[in-house]
Amino acid sequence: METIGALGEFGLIARLTRRLPQGPAVVLGPGDDAAVVRAPDRRVVATTDLLVEGRHFRLDWSGPYDIGRKAAAQNLADVVAMGARPTVLLIGLALPADTSVEWAERLYDGLADECARAGASVAGGDVVGASEITIAVTALGDLGGEPPLTRSGARPGEVVAVRGRIGHSSAGLDLLSGGLDGPAELIEAHRRPQPPYEAGEEARALGATALMDVSDGLLQDLGHIASASGVRIEVESAAMPVADVLGPDGLRHALTGGEDHAFAATFPAGSVLPPAWSVIGRVTEGEGVAVDGRRQGPAGWDHFRR
Amino acid sequence: METIGALGEFGLIARLTRRLPQGPAVVLGPGDDAAVVRAPDRRVVATTDLLVEGRHFRLDWSGPYDIGRKAAAQNLADVVAMGARPTVLLIGLALPADTSVEWAERLYDGLADECARAGASVAGGDVVGASEITIAVTALGDLGGEPPLTRSGARPGEVVAVRGRIGHSSAGLDLLSGGLDGPAELIEAHRRPQPPYEAGEEARALGATALMDVSDGLLQDLGHIASASGVRIEVESAAMPVADVLGPDGLRHALTGGEDHAFAATFPAGSVLPPAWSVIGRVTEGEGVAVDGRRQGPAGWDHFRR
Repeated sequence: METIGALGEFGLIARLTRRLPQGPAVVLGPGDDAAVVRAPDRRVVATTDLLVEGRHFRLDWSGPYDIGRKAAAQNLADVVAMGARPTVLLIGLALPADTSVEWAERLYDGLADECARAGASVAGGDVVGASEITIAVTALGDLGGEPPLTRSGARPGEVVAVRGRIGHSSAGLDLLSGGLDGPAELIEAHRRPQPPYEAGEEARALGATALMDVSDGLLQDLGHIASASGVRIEVESAAMPVADVLGPDGLRHALTGGEDHAFAATFPAGSVLPPAWSVIGRVTEGEGVAVDGRRQGPAGWDHFRR
Repeated sequence: METIGALGEFGLIARLTRRLPQGPAVVLGPGDDAAVVRAPDRRVVATTDLLVEGRHFRLDWSGPYDIGRKAAAQNLADVVAMGARPTVLLIGLALPADTSVEWAERLYDGLADECARAGASVAGGDVVGASEITIAVTALGDLGGEPPLTRSGARPGEVVAVRGRIGHSSAGLDLLSGGLDGPAELIEAHRRPQPPYEAGEEARALGATALMDVSDGLLQDLGHIASASGVRIEVESAAMPVADVLGPDGLRHALTGGEDHAFAATFPAGSVLPPAWSVIGRVTEGEGVAVDGRRQGPAGWDHFRR
């Protein structure tokens, strides 16, 4: 097995960047002190996330390709959640020296393929030695002349809707934690979230007033919209899109499970939304999030406290 | 002692972002799915680096404030090395749960202060749990309508010059490794590099054809310019700016020591440079880097092989 320790930092970087097709947004790709990326809007949307081995992924549960897909997806979804079009990712990779070169290459294949789904590419990065695997992903995006879709635009009277799989990743995680290997659909969903990247432009076209991606759990994330907008969000559990495959705990997974990177948005009262968007509740005066009229406490995922 | 494990992820993010003044480039700062940053040039310069505990810094040799300064400096220098003006940093921070909140706050103070030196600010980030400390820094910058100053523009006949402290960080590292605590100037230089950020605009105004920052060691980094430009670089050791404080090994530190983040550039033949720039050699036909006519092998710092 060829290890990255034997290949060395510069050899590894050369091997990895060779696998990366450069998209139209890249003016200058890997190989210099920094990349140069198009930002036609004169503003750039920018977000960064870390994924740490044993916390955000487990090597015995996910292969490198899926980890790459997931690492890219969660950052691309953050850009889309601003109503922007993702342009590039920058990848910081910390790896033990005994990691195989093939492992790193498959990770990069996953990153590149997920980028392609969103119309973006990997424009650069850094590789360093470490005792555990950490993947730092920065995503950039372009707003195309439009204002960003923040969390603070929700107003009383509006409707709340979600688009994308929700609860699947959490249900898949429960299965893996219990040593089960099916239903495959849920295991797959945990390993490889599939954010519907078109949801950003769609939400904007539909007049969305606030938008975010569901990364920590729907109730917790709606709480961020409620807090930033100074409103209360009322969810009706009967209106939640709970897939049968989620099983008896489906509603809990859909309300509190994170990492599917579905999108949640608020729309003006009376909006007629296409079927891909499920209306799950409404915005009222007040604060916090309620389900069927009952105010919810903080829930979801906190990386230190869990 | 208050730990970040007790405070929790969202509490820590709130405490840290409170310390961050937002600069003029920030349209939308921390608190949403992503930041929005001005890119008036319609292109954005972007670079990312990881710093890992025990490899890029040692907790017994550097305090959190200095680590923050250094983490910011090495990324801001990469932006300047493209001939761009740094606008913002994004910070991904992986920390053990028993890290004190004060440690993280001091790190952020260091990041913010170094940003201020370069006219930039911290626009957002992520905080996660981990078993070792990793700091992922992404820096963005604006080219102001000018072409990027890459590594590939050097041509035979040109002169090679450096600006900034060189060898100091390496000499300081040797002292710390040997259990010594002075000269303080060198220890300080290792803990807190001081890239002369004005060097980017200055190099451009002086007609620089290639520019980079010295992060891995001068010879190795000049090798990148030689390789990208398809030229040979000849260094005259007698012309090297070797500070007396570096001691008997001064020339070695200056030629092979990294992390000072001085700047190296090539300029047209006959250029008259201000005193801050030391002419150290010239560009010729050929390949690789030579010192006093002797071709050098790969040298400097490789994070896996060391």
